Amino acid sequence: MSPIMPERIGFVGLGRMGANMARRLKDLGYTISAVHDVNQEIALELAQELGARACGKLSEVTAAADVIFTVVTDDDAMDAIFKGRRDSLLQGAQKKTFINCATISPSVHRDIEKRAAKAGASSLEACMASSITQAREGTLYLMCGGKPEVYESVKAILTRLTSEGQTLRYIGAAGKAAEVKALVNMVMNINTAGLAEGLALGQSLGLDLTMLREVFSQTGANSRVLQTDGEDMQNRDHSCFFSAEHAAKDSGIALELAASRKLNLPLATATTKQFRRMVKEGLGQLDKSGIAELTFKGRHKSKSKSPRRRINP
Amino acid sequence: MSPIMPERIGFVGLGRMGANMARRLKDLGYTISAVHDVNQEIALELAQELGARACGKLSEVTAAADVIFTVVTDDDAMDAIFKGRRDSLLQGAQKKTFINCATISPSVHRDIEKRAAKAGASSLEACMASSITQAREGTLYLMCGGKPEVYESVKAILTRLTSEGQTLRYIGAAGKAAEVKALVNMVMNINTAGLAEGLALGQSLGLDLTMLREVFSQTGANSRVLQTDGEDMQNRDHSCFFSAEHAAKDSGIALELAASRKLNLPLATATTKQFRRMVKEGLGQLDKSGIAELTFKGRHKSKSKSPRRRINP
Repeated sequence: MSPIMPERIGFVGLGRMGANMARRLKDLGYTISAVHDVNQEIALELAQELGARACGKLSEVTAAADVIFTVVTDDDAMDAIFKGRRDSLLQGAQKKTFINCATISPSVHRDIEKRAAKAGASSLEACMASSITQAREGTLYLMCGGKPEVYESVKAILTRLTSEGQTLRYIGAAGKAAEVKALVNMVMNINTAGLAEGLALGQSLGLDLTMLREVFSQTGANSRVLQTDGEDMQNRDHSCFFSAEHAAKDSGIALELAASRKLNLPLATATTKQFRRMVKEGLGQLDKSGIAELTFKGRHKSKSKSPRRRINP
Repeated sequence: MSPIMPERIGFVGLGRMGANMARRLKDLGYTISAVHDVNQEIALELAQELGARACGKLSEVTAAADVIFTVVTDDDAMDAIFKGRRDSLLQGAQKKTFINCATISPSVHRDIEKRAAKAGASSLEACMASSITQAREGTLYLMCGGKPEVYESVKAILTRLTSEGQTLRYIGAAGKAAEVKALVNMVMNINTAGLAEGLALGQSLGLDLTMLREVFSQTGANSRVLQTDGEDMQNRDHSCFFSAEHAAKDSGIALELAASRKLNLPLATATTKQFRRMVKEGLGQLDKSGIAELTFKGRHKSKSKSPRRRINP
């Protein structure tokens, strides 16, 4: 007996995460009815692959779907799809449900929830702490924020994306999941920058970095990023899974939260500076492991080799 | 058939690590012939427990043992036991072997190796990356530096302290193991300070810290220190396994190595400042997890609440 799947599902934002989530749901028998991306070519390609309609307008996605996943890049992109005057996902959105997966500021989730309610629609944040492979395989780690009844209404779909619900978490009100996500990435970024420093100093001392990583893995220096990024830092392989630009953005969100609570976080501050420096130096599209390029001696030549500023020359 | 155990073993520095290593070797049938500590009472107690001689003078330990473990606190303590004019381990040290387990500056290991050679003795560094429990159970993680032949000559003993050799590593020349150890602790301390910032911000945002730690453990924020220190940070349980003062010292050693290589390490620098601030604020005897006391809002009232300095009032 097939499960009942009444929902027509729409996708807005067809990067590798969004596209892979759509593919996963399609595999499971869900109807992907409508897709949209600012890059129309990408939308057309995925529409063809999944038997969906490529919508030029956002309101067409809303019309053609019951549940709409949004997987866009940042706060501005969220504003663009939900607040556009000429075209917006909230036009004709009565009884529709939006599941917003972008890593954005908590306040934006709260704002979108209010706006959705005014339009008679529901909104749920579903922050992802996972890779594109996990999106494709349905093993995402999803943290949800919003009204409990909205969460329950889409729980069946989300379960299929999260190892049958093993990695699905309801965190609290709208914005709370984004807060947790910002903290996850803040700590991850600190560990990444710290690991780069350890390996960079090891190299400067002439130590065998394979040996050093093995020792780290057996001791108090062990971390998830050692497993995911350590070898890449050593081998200078920075193919992008999570870009330095994203790292800079997410650590920035965490720092703003800290500032709003008058909390001083020296390591998060130093880490944010490092990732912002990567962006400035044109390394923002590298994977976060690329911070090793900035930290290892002799790897990256700074662009900003301006002469030292003199005060009162 | 009993294994042949010709060595009489001495111990200098009877803190919990040293005492537990001695107990472990005694359990295995080794002869602990002589012990010494700056605190004579401690030496007498352990001597009685292990059937050893409590030596008031360092040269008496050398005379009474073939292999001498030193497990002292820092560079100065190493100088005191090896360079003392009136009394030193190197007096009458011909053919004796010293195994030095303190976490100290790499240059001190190199210096001691030279001095030992002049006295006709051998020296090996054996840096520990482990807890007192592991010392007692013979499951230490030991990293050795020195001449390969010295390492081979005491490998049998070291094997019994390191999960039958599974966690015994020969790293390279004298000082190299101390370098690796300094790097391990530098990265561990960064991860610890970063974790404290993540949990502190979580608390400020009103998040459930047990939930937050669970999310960290499932994501890129996971680390060994999350497992060892996360709950303690939440519950303010800072019973000392590895003190903040030690953390400050070890990160300081790493920073000096970095400076000698003209390497800029912003996270290690920020971390060292934090642990030094702990020492200054009278929190140096707390476990390293105590950095949460400094980082969480409202937990620790700074002693140095001096009025802001004015420039040209």
